[in-house]
Amino acid sequence: MRNENRKYHKAAYLDNVKERRVKENRMVFGIRAVLEAIEAGKEFDRILIRRDMNSAIGKELLDATREKNLPIIRVPQEKLNRLTEKNHQGVIAFLSEITYQNVEEMVLRVYEEGKNPFFVVLDGITDVRNFGAIARTCECAGVDAIILPMRGGVSVTADAIKTSAGALHRVPVCRVEDLTATLKFLSESGIQLVAATEKSQQDYTDTDFTSPVAIVMGAEDVGIAEEHLQCCDKHVRIPMFGKIASLNVSVSAGILLYEVVRQRK
Amino acid sequence: MRNENRKYHKAAYLDNVKERRVKENRMVFGIRAVLEAIEAGKEFDRILIRRDMNSAIGKELLDATREKNLPIIRVPQEKLNRLTEKNHQGVIAFLSEITYQNVEEMVLRVYEEGKNPFFVVLDGITDVRNFGAIARTCECAGVDAIILPMRGGVSVTADAIKTSAGALHRVPVCRVEDLTATLKFLSESGIQLVAATEKSQQDYTDTDFTSPVAIVMGAEDVGIAEEHLQCCDKHVRIPMFGKIASLNVSVSAGILLYEVVRQRK
Repeated sequence: MRNENRKYHKAAYLDNVKERRVKENRMVFGIRAVLEAIEAGKEFDRILIRRDMNSAIGKELLDATREKNLPIIRVPQEKLNRLTEKNHQGVIAFLSEITYQNVEEMVLRVYEEGKNPFFVVLDGITDVRNFGAIARTCECAGVDAIILPMRGGVSVTADAIKTSAGALHRVPVCRVEDLTATLKFLSESGIQLVAATEKSQQDYTDTDFTSPVAIVMGAEDVGIAEEHLQCCDKHVRIPMFGKIASLNVSVSAGILLYEVVRQRK
Repeated sequence: MRNENRKYHKAAYLDNVKERRVKENRMVFGIRAVLEAIEAGKEFDRILIRRDMNSAIGKELLDATREKNLPIIRVPQEKLNRLTEKNHQGVIAFLSEITYQNVEEMVLRVYEEGKNPFFVVLDGITDVRNFGAIARTCECAGVDAIILPMRGGVSVTADAIKTSAGALHRVPVCRVEDLTATLKFLSESGIQLVAATEKSQQDYTDTDFTSPVAIVMGAEDVGIAEEHLQCCDKHVRIPMFGKIASLNVSVSAGILLYEVVRQRK
């Protein structure tokens, strides 16, 4: 066991080193460098900016992120110092692993291709393994796109791609600033929003999934946010016969997505 | 990041220490002590015995394990030395976390209770998180029992129970010496054996699950062993529309188990 522990630590250490190298490859730091990346149209997973940044060029950076609606997070100086020893000047940006798609264009494209729209909305999923497994299921079930909120949940990191067995390179992902607005847009576009929630009394198999649909799945702990639940056309539940009364979210997603597949066969 | 690494290492180390303590609580070592545990009818997750054990009392131990059909593994002395610094005399036994059920009695009981049998057979699942998620789904879907082979796959460890959200304390688990014999027994007991395999051409939704059924799921990498596949009455596949062509095994299990639930509704 002691030897196994050592092996475990060594593997964990090497994983970390590798992960750090990968992360450093995808990091851009320094105000001028980040501004240039923004101007070059690069996509960002997130941009960490020092909380008290208020120089003239710092303001220029903040304006640019606002104008392009980029995912910025204000953090204390120490957090940035921990991420790199290099001179970051109060800003570290992480480049995105994938190119996120625009949700309006995606809906239009799916209709134009004559497909029956099939979307999955993930509201606040935080576990990267769950996200990876769901993405893999989406790829297998022929889902047209996965829609994520820009904040408060997973994003498409290298780890997520790995646990998805590469599915996140194949299924388009849309990341949206305002999930409520996106849900309304989907609904107005003729897409039925079906929320998976244990609070519903309707069995998912009694629901018609043959028309255009977006399945909305909530966070592992709290489920779908109340304001998003209210936007949904239908609330469905998966029946439970035991005492535990909750499935793993990636298993629930699999059951619902393949019910759509079954009904559309 | 450096600080995060440190935290990670510390957490990993503490996890390991904790795990070792739990394991030591469930370890019995020394020939006489293990013989007494066997005589007292204790259940074992596994019993590690030194490869070259051949003293008189050592033979007595081996005879006792054979007579009771216990899961023994012959290992080199060094492996035992790594597990404990105490005087193990060539044998370390791990007590079982749960009481495994007898599969024949389980089938009888399910029929006697007037239920429509619903079993799940896991042939060589090795990832404890997958096992936990499948057990959780079994509990929710009302599965009567999970059947595992004694060797070549997961057993019900503390980790498995944790990842199952406690489901492994609720769903009966049978661990069998000879899975081929058990499959034949189930089939002769009127239980349809349905194997999930990507090699099949039959869509799982075209299969009737309303009669007594055991769903057989295979290992993450190689699927169901050929000799077990041959025992099954039906081979079914989950249709795939992407390029990855393989779902996570716990997601596949969820899709199949809930198709049984749907058809029996």
